[in-house]
Amino acid sequence: MRVGSDSREVKSALEIFGGIEAGGTKFVCVVGSGVTDLRAEASFLTTTPDETIARSIDFFKSQGAHGELRAVGIGSFGPVDLNPRSETFGYITTTPKPHWAHTDFSGRIERALGVPVVIDTDVNAAALGETTWGAGRGLDTIVYLTIGTGIGGGCIMDGRLLHGLSHPEMGHLRIPHSLEQDPYAGGCPFHGDCLEGLAAGPALKARWGQPAENLPANHPAWTLEAHYLALGLVNVICTLSPQRIILGGGVMKRTVLFTLIRREVQKLLNGYLLVPAITERIDEYIVPPALGDRAGVLGAIALAKKTVEQEPQESGLRTV
Amino acid sequence: MRVGSDSREVKSALEIFGGIEAGGTKFVCVVGSGVTDLRAEASFLTTTPDETIARSIDFFKSQGAHGELRAVGIGSFGPVDLNPRSETFGYITTTPKPHWAHTDFSGRIERALGVPVVIDTDVNAAALGETTWGAGRGLDTIVYLTIGTGIGGGCIMDGRLLHGLSHPEMGHLRIPHSLEQDPYAGGCPFHGDCLEGLAAGPALKARWGQPAENLPANHPAWTLEAHYLALGLVNVICTLSPQRIILGGGVMKRTVLFTLIRREVQKLLNGYLLVPAITERIDEYIVPPALGDRAGVLGAIALAKKTVEQEPQESGLRTV
Repeated sequence: MRVGSDSREVKSALEIFGGIEAGGTKFVCVVGSGVTDLRAEASFLTTTPDETIARSIDFFKSQGAHGELRAVGIGSFGPVDLNPRSETFGYITTTPKPHWAHTDFSGRIERALGVPVVIDTDVNAAALGETTWGAGRGLDTIVYLTIGTGIGGGCIMDGRLLHGLSHPEMGHLRIPHSLEQDPYAGGCPFHGDCLEGLAAGPALKARWGQPAENLPANHPAWTLEAHYLALGLVNVICTLSPQRIILGGGVMKRTVLFTLIRREVQKLLNGYLLVPAITERIDEYIVPPALGDRAGVLGAIALAKKTVEQEPQESGLRTV
Repeated sequence: MRVGSDSREVKSALEIFGGIEAGGTKFVCVVGSGVTDLRAEASFLTTTPDETIARSIDFFKSQGAHGELRAVGIGSFGPVDLNPRSETFGYITTTPKPHWAHTDFSGRIERALGVPVVIDTDVNAAALGETTWGAGRGLDTIVYLTIGTGIGGGCIMDGRLLHGLSHPEMGHLRIPHSLEQDPYAGGCPFHGDCLEGLAAGPALKARWGQPAENLPANHPAWTLEAHYLALGLVNVICTLSPQRIILGGGVMKRTVLFTLIRREVQKLLNGYLLVPAITERIDEYIVPPALGDRAGVLGAIALAKKTVEQEPQESGLRTV
């Protein structure tokens, strides 16, 4: 019956996509087809893989009333094995999070639901969400950075998710750090004073003796924080050359940071890159996510849709 | 007459491509079709734009005996305006090199020769050359860095040249620098102690009081140099996630650097990225260019060929 353009439209109306934003603290699962069409949502704490993955599967299995589930996208905490030729493709690999190291994640969901499941990093998913429906619309090369409990970055390069060897690890950029001006040694267990070690939420707390959200707006913490983040952004600009940088995550709720970071990026570049996007329109160059906290989960939906679109033949076979 | 498969082969045999490696010191022009087929070459000093561009044009005009020139690729010193929507597309823009700032480069060659001319940075061209015929063959995401008078980096990402907002400027990465251990303040006129300011050839000379090539193999200069370059590479890995990094340029002629850099990259990553390419096979991960000093000019030929292949219709029209 499913032939011709009419039946195709009917099919589309009944198609839904699943999205999982898999965070270290909680999971958010949704079904829908985009920013204006989210039909159901559930969120629950990240406990053991068995329990948390089973809850996700149960959620999707119970959404039949909303349409035919075509594919599921996952934006996950990491590191995630994204190499399709690897035996542990779709696994969470060396995470220090208890129980989760070396966990088959996307494979389990795929076998349980019988639909294509695509996994990427949480920040790559957020970058895709913002490119599809948010602050990256119309651009083909953007970076999404989250600054919260940790720091991570995702990138859409020429319209495609950046993977390369594995996936970016922008939190672990090395930046200048003067121990004279800032005696805090940095909190990264691997690198000490890398970007994440100096500028993630826990570093702010350790350096100033109180959680970032308690520090007043005029506290010197914010100038120093902007300095470190700007150093990170300069390195992102010098390598990825993005058309826009989107900064999300808990620390960036302190919106004064945007002004401080923009000014500091210009100061650090010191007129070297004479691109109007940076010299004249930096307010539009370094921006908050337009989707707010929904960037990740919407990105997961976008991942799922992209998979189906990219495999027209295979998907066709699956739905016949 | 040019129809059918036979005539197509004949046409290919008569087709040649032009390549220009436009350096700040000298220009190299070639015609041919690839690494095993370079039919003519000329090199001359980079003087004024009028003189140097005219010599390039004359060279290509006099190569008729070798076949029909289909396109010219340029790998150029920069910065170069690579934005096709810009009024100064194909110009060399803010270079401090006398006479060359704001010079229409690719446009002049294109008008004089009447064939498509494509321009990119010297390092993007070299990255393309290495991906097409050299150390990047079979990979889709590689970085090419040159460490010489300056430091620059090019990137092939998912098989495509990385441009984004403009083009990468990897020489200007910010890295940790301890003035206690290395009192040299850095030589970059824009940023002082960025990667180029600390690790390009002139920085070695300024720090140690003699040209890099005079420093003996056991001089502490090389350990420090490897440390800075490794910090730069770690930042490249954390952002671009390349499948291989190719290091060329005059400073890298000191081959002991490869061993020192590989060890230092592993030390700095400190087990964070558990990818076998880095943990087990780093000798194949950080490598010299397989094309040696020909990476740039061969990359320019590859650029020219790519342009013609990417525009089959337009090119078809041009040859009818």
